[in-house]
Amino acid sequence: MADASRSKPSNRRPQILSGFRDHLPEQMLVRRQIIDTFRTIFERHGFDAIETPALEHLEVLTGKAGENEKLMYQWEDAGGRNVGLRYDLTVPLARFVAVHESEIVFPFKRYHIAPVWRAEKPQRGRFREFWQCDADIVGSPSMAADAEAISIAAEALTAVGLPNFTVLISHRRLLEGIALSSGIPGELAGNVYRTVDKLAKIGAHGVRAELIEAGVENDSADRLLEAVTLTGNSDALLVSLKDRLAALPDGSKAVDELTELFAILPALGVDRNAYKLDVSLARGLDYYTGPVFEAVVDEPRVGSVVGAGRYDGLVGSFAGRVIPATGMSLGLERIIEVVEEFKLLPMNRTVAEVMVAVFPKSVSQAAGIAKILRDSGLNVDLSLQSKKSVGEQLKYADRRGIPFVVIPGEAELERDEVLIKEIATGRQWTVSLSALSHELRSAVDAR
Amino acid sequence: MADASRSKPSNRRPQILSGFRDHLPEQMLVRRQIIDTFRTIFERHGFDAIETPALEHLEVLTGKAGENEKLMYQWEDAGGRNVGLRYDLTVPLARFVAVHESEIVFPFKRYHIAPVWRAEKPQRGRFREFWQCDADIVGSPSMAADAEAISIAAEALTAVGLPNFTVLISHRRLLEGIALSSGIPGELAGNVYRTVDKLAKIGAHGVRAELIEAGVENDSADRLLEAVTLTGNSDALLVSLKDRLAALPDGSKAVDELTELFAILPALGVDRNAYKLDVSLARGLDYYTGPVFEAVVDEPRVGSVVGAGRYDGLVGSFAGRVIPATGMSLGLERIIEVVEEFKLLPMNRTVAEVMVAVFPKSVSQAAGIAKILRDSGLNVDLSLQSKKSVGEQLKYADRRGIPFVVIPGEAELERDEVLIKEIATGRQWTVSLSALSHELRSAVDAR
Repeated sequence: MADASRSKPSNRRPQILSGFRDHLPEQMLVRRQIIDTFRTIFERHGFDAIETPALEHLEVLTGKAGENEKLMYQWEDAGGRNVGLRYDLTVPLARFVAVHESEIVFPFKRYHIAPVWRAEKPQRGRFREFWQCDADIVGSPSMAADAEAISIAAEALTAVGLPNFTVLISHRRLLEGIALSSGIPGELAGNVYRTVDKLAKIGAHGVRAELIEAGVENDSADRLLEAVTLTGNSDALLVSLKDRLAALPDGSKAVDELTELFAILPALGVDRNAYKLDVSLARGLDYYTGPVFEAVVDEPRVGSVVGAGRYDGLVGSFAGRVIPATGMSLGLERIIEVVEEFKLLPMNRTVAEVMVAVFPKSVSQAAGIAKILRDSGLNVDLSLQSKKSVGEQLKYADRRGIPFVVIPGEAELERDEVLIKEIATGRQWTVSLSALSHELRSAVDAR
Repeated sequence: MADASRSKPSNRRPQILSGFRDHLPEQMLVRRQIIDTFRTIFERHGFDAIETPALEHLEVLTGKAGENEKLMYQWEDAGGRNVGLRYDLTVPLARFVAVHESEIVFPFKRYHIAPVWRAEKPQRGRFREFWQCDADIVGSPSMAADAEAISIAAEALTAVGLPNFTVLISHRRLLEGIALSSGIPGELAGNVYRTVDKLAKIGAHGVRAELIEAGVENDSADRLLEAVTLTGNSDALLVSLKDRLAALPDGSKAVDELTELFAILPALGVDRNAYKLDVSLARGLDYYTGPVFEAVVDEPRVGSVVGAGRYDGLVGSFAGRVIPATGMSLGLERIIEVVEEFKLLPMNRTVAEVMVAVFPKSVSQAAGIAKILRDSGLNVDLSLQSKKSVGEQLKYADRRGIPFVVIPGEAELERDEVLIKEIATGRQWTVSLSALSHELRSAVDAR
């Protein structure tokens, strides 16, 4: 940095906290592009944004946290209150609904895109501060609500360059029904989902062993495993499950709800090849009560990037009554990582589309040109280096990644003209001042 | 809420922390509109976004905090580190520059819009969590950088419906020069700005008393007060100050810098009536080293909403060398408050522009209509209340503030038509399905 005079080096070495990240301009461009895309899709579906504070009373956060509690940033504030940083956006939603119940119109469709904090051991791809991106519908038991969540997930992934995904759909009560119909006794059936959840990780063999360990009979374990590993047409599977679970009210209701859900999806525009029933999908969380789904990206093979489900108990827990709720969480950080790695979206290094170079004698003319271009809607960097050569100023534009430079040379200005230079190609040409905005807009759009 | 069954009331009363706020959908609409406007203006000026973590090492935050230290949320984390929540965006910028020096292209133009936290006593209009909105240029001593900051401030205020403002401009070294030229001895002159800063609050009389208390002679105090209360044409004032401070290198340089700054502003499109030299403008902060400015809104009379200045010492403090820097902070929360109070921007209660009502027999048709409208770019709420009457569904749209409802009645659908109803007027008319998107887009745009 030529403009700064050196003084003695500081002995304070500033550092960022371990597990935390800065986002540089080019990273922000990808993040903002993805976040803005998701916002647009949520709003197309009629979801409104809300925000809640980063800090909450600790007792609000610990209410439903369970094992997350030890991962929470918590402390006693100067007023002696126990406070913590939110570790997800679902508990704040429940608190929000309880506090603003009289102001909210139900069914309440809200989205929330914001950072959360977890004091986890940092590791590759896992940070202590990361953003969540949730859309939920509070106050509706309708399967159309669950279908909307799946539609949003499908549109969101397609919009950020990940069209090759499959939405795996199941129902929290389905697995329990299948367990019961496999001969697993009631006191074990309700917890079978925890074991089946590990299918991908430990295989059918591992799941079988764990079931038997838990006290399930051999035959029952086999029947359960046969059912959860069935593949084929989702509608046909639902018909056969309807028969199998006919005697079990909860199981039957689960099949009916899924049947209703599957009937709405095509109308909402979700491609019929983009989703399927996956009975083995358990999703680990205790609080799900209805349909659950996960979107898995097949190409590039990056795994699950959206998780969701119906959780009719949690949101009402603070309000003191059952409030049905369903929703989805886009794995924002993972999606950003994948978009960056596979260059799925156009990547720029700066928002600036044009730099206006400056000569010492004509700073005001350069400023005037910048003003005209900005008014035409271009993002314009006015060079601050009038004391440097045009060559040095061009290097600055190149290093920042600004694609075009306007050079208002004395000779050209006398003819009411300027030079445009395209950095990537070195191409340069003369344009009249009156045609400049239009010319640059075309050049920028043509890249 | 009809869909929720009542259970026994909870004995946990969830509360939001004192001094913190939730933002409901209609508040978010105003906030987002203003934030997006400011983002656009920053980007038009070639500024790139960055983000830094909410948490920093406490020693980073306390480095330059001074009296802010006691207002900081700070604690010892589970790993024994002293950490704190950022209380502004300037100290994180200095830390960011030190850590990423080799990746940054200087002059570095960055903006940062994000929440900060201060453990202050909550009072009207003052919160413990609030957003700041800063744009800074790091690494340029050019007055064009300061001029850009003023241009951004002027455009930002105009864009959010506050065009009646005045930008008051001065220079941190000007007041010191005037003090010296008034006969105030050097050891007192450097601190005169602290007292003059109170002019609006305690009046010329109060300032005079405080100066004399500090050891300033009567005559000198009078001469100083005469100079700082001068009004009139800024260019003429600068000429007379040039004479007055001719013998003082720092004072002369201040006048030269301001003269240069005032010459660039009109070229950048800042209205000549929208800014003026105000020698009494001191701005309380120690760290300013060059031009300082404040934008004061005259109508409605809401006071200062933008503060800014050059601070060549702070940003380089972590990097261990002097790095020139200048920038501005838009008083985002205050601006939002004013825009809401005076209804300066269009206010909606929801993003949804259209609701599609649903009948039990034709949920899929309704979903299909919602899909078509969404694809045309409309924000569409698909009703989830198929079990309720159309009248009830219309009430929902009304309560949420959704302006138009599409009613796909059986008879109309048979003719490939639907009914559109405008909630505000009660007006309703029949439209063919093929013309629906276009018709609704026109209706929404015409509001």
